[in-house]
Amino acid sequence: MPTLILDKKTVQGMLNMTAVIKAVEQAFLDWTDGKGTMPAKAYLVLQEGDFRAMPAALPGAAGVKWVNVHPKNPRRGLPTVMAVLIYNDPETGYPLAVMDATDITAFRTGATAAIASKYLARRDSHTIGVIGAGRQAYTQIMAHAELFDLQMVKIYDMAPSAAEKLARSVPQFKTRICRLEEAAASDILCTVTPARAPVLKKSHIRPGTHINAIGADAEGKEELEPSVLKGAMVVVDDLRQASKSGEINVPIAKGLYTPSEVYSTLGEIIAGHKPGRTDPNAVTIFDSTGVAIEDIAIAKLIYDKAKNDGHLSVDLV
Amino acid sequence: MPTLILDKKTVQGMLNMTAVIKAVEQAFLDWTDGKGTMPAKAYLVLQEGDFRAMPAALPGAAGVKWVNVHPKNPRRGLPTVMAVLIYNDPETGYPLAVMDATDITAFRTGATAAIASKYLARRDSHTIGVIGAGRQAYTQIMAHAELFDLQMVKIYDMAPSAAEKLARSVPQFKTRICRLEEAAASDILCTVTPARAPVLKKSHIRPGTHINAIGADAEGKEELEPSVLKGAMVVVDDLRQASKSGEINVPIAKGLYTPSEVYSTLGEIIAGHKPGRTDPNAVTIFDSTGVAIEDIAIAKLIYDKAKNDGHLSVDLV
Repeated sequence: MPTLILDKKTVQGMLNMTAVIKAVEQAFLDWTDGKGTMPAKAYLVLQEGDFRAMPAALPGAAGVKWVNVHPKNPRRGLPTVMAVLIYNDPETGYPLAVMDATDITAFRTGATAAIASKYLARRDSHTIGVIGAGRQAYTQIMAHAELFDLQMVKIYDMAPSAAEKLARSVPQFKTRICRLEEAAASDILCTVTPARAPVLKKSHIRPGTHINAIGADAEGKEELEPSVLKGAMVVVDDLRQASKSGEINVPIAKGLYTPSEVYSTLGEIIAGHKPGRTDPNAVTIFDSTGVAIEDIAIAKLIYDKAKNDGHLSVDLV
Repeated sequence: MPTLILDKKTVQGMLNMTAVIKAVEQAFLDWTDGKGTMPAKAYLVLQEGDFRAMPAALPGAAGVKWVNVHPKNPRRGLPTVMAVLIYNDPETGYPLAVMDATDITAFRTGATAAIASKYLARRDSHTIGVIGAGRQAYTQIMAHAELFDLQMVKIYDMAPSAAEKLARSVPQFKTRICRLEEAAASDILCTVTPARAPVLKKSHIRPGTHINAIGADAEGKEELEPSVLKGAMVVVDDLRQASKSGEINVPIAKGLYTPSEVYSTLGEIIAGHKPGRTDPNAVTIFDSTGVAIEDIAIAKLIYDKAKNDGHLSVDLV
């Protein structure tokens, strides 16, 4: 039995945000219902960067994403983050496919944030503010556009050229490149920076705002002033992982926040175990660290589409 | 930059036991000298089987092996164990190759046992006894033949047909299919069974024997009566992993053995921090659980050989 080899271009051609959002939402539901399995990530930490092994299984799907973070790569003309995913049959362990997961990672991060916004943002949200105009910002906008009628995209980046580049990449939307304060005054706010000290202050945040805190995904990273968390309804993708490496990790380490203050997981809200937003004036925060069930859900989507399409396959094992 | 795709046949054609033994011994040395990194395996446990993510790095090499164990596979005509390895540049994280690691796993397990025998068996060892004649038994014999003058290979298996098949696969050696007791009366003994209760009893073991205990690689598995361990010089590949899933795991769980009774790691002996066998009458045991540095060392060997040879490559990421 051959293994499909799905390269970057092939995967890019198959990624569809509508389908991705549906698959990721279902994955959180399955996982919350005990139909998914996800052990903790394994970190391989080296001098120039690190690697993470992210295994997970969902009904009919299993696999591992192997993703690196090498901050000095741009100087060498390489992306900071590259990911490969091995996709297996959970019944036999057979490796059905090996695929690029760099774009899967970007799509699922955008999709998950948009799903969080669906349950946590005000229904009448029409403006999205993006803090940090790097690679992840684009999929944040594209995913939210699937679920919201976006009338304005506000973009802030320390580097104006990055903000301009992002604006040019979404010509279908009305965009405004603006100061941090102005971008923060949006219905939905997505923070996608590599910050290690708070960028967003409490004074920036209006009542009723929903924040997707995406950037913090490792120990020591944080984007929000801890006081922003204190009065807010905080939802996490995975409590254990968020406490260790998400937006709440630094405030917890400093004794300014405790995991017990977290309102819920995203899965519990999707499953209806807990309500999402009920108060139009509440500040809600989704602390996204990225979980492997998201990647495996999309890998299944891609494999199911690719398997009958004559893609490159080899007798790998 | 393209990623090499090295399928089963390609990898098989490149595996050379002499080179594998040399690379694995160097890997243990590097790891013991602090030049390697190996986090704990991540286990994904499902109903029909399990998967393990095994990341590691050595000088100039990094990657992860993703390997399944699905015991019911033979009924479906599939191997129980299949492995894929993603091999990366540690400096940039770039995935240089994706390769079959099923045969790498068998080769490195044999190689590591033979290296252990080199330091722990009597120099004048000429007979090898193999308990369990499955897939791993073949590479045990081949690896030991590199380092010892094997005058007799004794084979025991509960299934005589398996023993006969193994004997036929090594026609270059004098073999004898025999009872457990007779196979156990060998200079070097390799236990390669899936046993969950002791197969080898204290009464089977003569003074001066070296045992490579290979089979136990998960909680609840054991091949040796705990009393065999008590009087012996026990060496492990990795103390943390052996205590959890190696030959010593069940005796430790039952309070019959403690990790402090372990004499040494294999790496410490190779590095000369501790002597190997000094007493010709001692019973020595190498408790092999299998560590990812072994796989990465061989992956480097294969990649370095393959990269200039025009193998299949794709723009994977």
